[in-house]
Amino acid sequence: MKIGIADTMFSRINMFAFAEQQLKELNFSGDTERYTVPGIKDLPVACKILFEKFNCDLVIALGMPGKEKIDKTCSHEASLGIQAVQLMTNKHILEVFVHLDEAKNEKQLFEISENRTKKHAINAVKLLEGKTALSDLAGKGIRQGFSNAGEIKNE
Amino acid sequence: MKIGIADTMFSRINMFAFAEQQLKELNFSGDTERYTVPGIKDLPVACKILFEKFNCDLVIALGMPGKEKIDKTCSHEASLGIQAVQLMTNKHILEVFVHLDEAKNEKQLFEISENRTKKHAINAVKLLEGKTALSDLAGKGIRQGFSNAGEIKNE
Amino acid sequence: MKIGIADTMFSRINMFAFAEQQLKELNFSGDTERYTVPGIKDLPVACKILFEKFNCDLVIALGMPGKEKIDKTCSHEASLGIQAVQLMTNKHILEVFVHLDEAKNEKQLFEISENRTKKHAINAVKLLEGKTALSDLAGKGIRQGFSNAGEIKNE
Amino acid sequence: MKIGIADTMFSRINMFAFAEQQLKELNFSGDTERYTVPGIKDLPVACKILFEKFNCDLVIALGMPGKEKIDKTCSHEASLGIQAVQLMTNKHILEVFVHLDEAKNEKQLFEISENRTKKHAINAVKLLEGKTALSDLAGKGIRQGFSNAGEIKNE
Amino acid sequence: MKIGIADTMFSRINMFAFAEQQLKELNFSGDTERYTVPGIKDLPVACKILFEKFNCDLVIALGMPGKEKIDKTCSHEASLGIQAVQLMTNKHILEVFVHLDEAKNEKQLFEISENRTKKHAINAVKLLEGKTALSDLAGKGIRQGFSNAGEIKNE
Repeated sequence: MKIGIADTMFSRINMFAFAEQQLKELNFSGDTERYTVPGIKDLPVACKILFEKFNCDLVIALGMPGKEKIDKTCSHEASLGIQAVQLMTNKHILEVFVHLDEAKNEKQLFEISENRTKKHAINAVKLLEGKTALSDLAGKGIRQGFSNAGEIKNE
Repeated sequence: MKIGIADTMFSRINMFAFAEQQLKELNFSGDTERYTVPGIKDLPVACKILFEKFNCDLVIALGMPGKEKIDKTCSHEASLGIQAVQLMTNKHILEVFVHLDEAKNEKQLFEISENRTKKHAINAVKLLEGKTALSDLAGKGIRQGFSNAGEIKNE
Repeated sequence: MKIGIADTMFSRINMFAFAEQQLKELNFSGDTERYTVPGIKDLPVACKILFEKFNCDLVIALGMPGKEKIDKTCSHEASLGIQAVQLMTNKHILEVFVHLDEAKNEKQLFEISENRTKKHAINAVKLLEGKTALSDLAGKGIRQGFSNAGEIKNE
Repeated sequence: MKIGIADTMFSRINMFAFAEQQLKELNFSGDTERYTVPGIKDLPVACKILFEKFNCDLVIALGMPGKEKIDKTCSHEASLGIQAVQLMTNKHILEVFVHLDEAKNEKQLFEISENRTKKHAINAVKLLEGKTALSDLAGKGIRQGFSNAGEIKNE
Repeated sequence: MKIGIADTMFSRINMFAFAEQQLKELNFSGDTERYTVPGIKDLPVACKILFEKFNCDLVIALGMPGKEKIDKTCSHEASLGIQAVQLMTNKHILEVFVHLDEAKNEKQLFEISENRTKKHAINAVKLLEGKTALSDLAGKGIRQGFSNAGEIKNE
């Protein structure tokens, strides 16, 4: 199994390091391939190349959209590209985007980035196991980047 | 006939259970295949895989988008992906999304989720019967999750 | 020639009847095929199936989007799907959407629905005649659902 | 060389006449093909058919979106369809849309329509000459429908 | 290696000159191909033709969206087209868009245009070297058009 990791120069945090560290902690026995691009809108084609030229089975796409309205549009365009790549390849891309305006300060931004990237690295390995490997966690209000929201049951 | 059911870890309610329960009540004689992913943006490719690798004839996609503006964007991206998968496969995906902000409280959220999922499970079985199996209900203002709006006739 | 007519359970008005009635009044000599789905987001794949499995030459897609913001998003997604189907098949889909909030009351909603559906049924038959069958009406400010806006000429 | 011209019944101005007149003034020696549809959302597939069934080398798509929010959504959907057709055919579509709310009055709307359509008819003929036929005008702040904005040079 | 450069008549600044100058400064030994179109919505198909008919390995797409709401919609449509072209060709397009409203005055607009175009010309050459050629700069908060935001490290 091979996991691709695509990251950007635009990001203010080295998110690649979190993914790499988590995969190591999980004793992931497969290979990894990295692809670095300028910004999030360059990620979709990088993911596609990771699948088609580098034979990755799943890609983790790491990005950090900015605060402005134009940044949100860019993020939406990147996400639509990422959707398209998955449908063209029948493979998962776990989109790990941390928005510059979802944290109060740089310290929290760092924490969210670490938490979200690592949790999705765990999800990546589970998804490679099969389509029901995550079913025990379905409907549990699981979050990446923040604490879980939890399950709502019938009262 | 085989119905795929895709669900998410992000959802705060076990919507899969509602779908499974309804199909049982309908004495659906076909098979089902489950696919669990982290969040709604991971659903489209899961649906496509359910069609192409697991030979499903129709998929019910269960998701629970969040309250924030970014969540609405994610939901829109997931929906566009779901549109694309249907057109690539010529098969229906019934999108059962319950938004975290469409209910007043957790109790109502649970009720909407149960109602919408079960009604769409019924629709799923009908759609597999043929293209006019639902025609008796056309133009009747049928709703899932809430009570029906009803038909407007010429006064 | 075969015209497909796709309609929804969500619609509060039996728009199919208007289309059928108009085609009869026009003495349309071809066949029609109906496909009923739960809501507007289920229309695109139904149109595609009407083209590819039921050999329709043109489809009239009848829908009634709701009033809420989420309904407008759904309508946009359905319209993008309908665009995609046309480009995949090189055939026209006349999208007849009547929004629940474009009328003052139920009576007007009924009138708009009847007017728009019937006028588009006429357009459908004309489009099947050829690419310039409607050219005499080009630039005339023709409307469906409301009265025509009329042509603006050089003063 | 063959230029397709697609136009709509919805438009309040006969934009086709402007295009035809300009091509005549340019002594364009090739052929033209017209395709008239009800509204702008019907233009993309008409353009595709002009390319694929009528062998056009470039299409001018003439439309007049309305003033309401829903009209802007329709215009966006039509534009996305026009993008898709170009990428499916590797041919240019010059989108000449005049919005009903970009003019102060009907007289100005007429002037904008004439100006924009004619300038794009000129662009069409130039684009058919080759990929650098317009390079002398690059970066000059050229506008269609209004007067040019002009070039900004280093002070 | 061949780099395509697509630019527009709409732009108020000769951005092509910046790209050409930077490639020369870098002693880029490959070829370049230029394609000039009227506006940003004409760029995607131009990029696709640069890849498929002129054998470019990467394209730099230069554009200058206007200030109005409609301009932002056009820019979004162009960006989605550029996403699609990349996924259809497995090649990078570096989108260098400078919005007319992101500068305080014409002098600053010129500076942003020069800075952003030149930095992306450098990125273009690096991306052609391979998928990790930019990895040393990943997560460093690199910006084009403005000064870098810098890296956030764990405190």
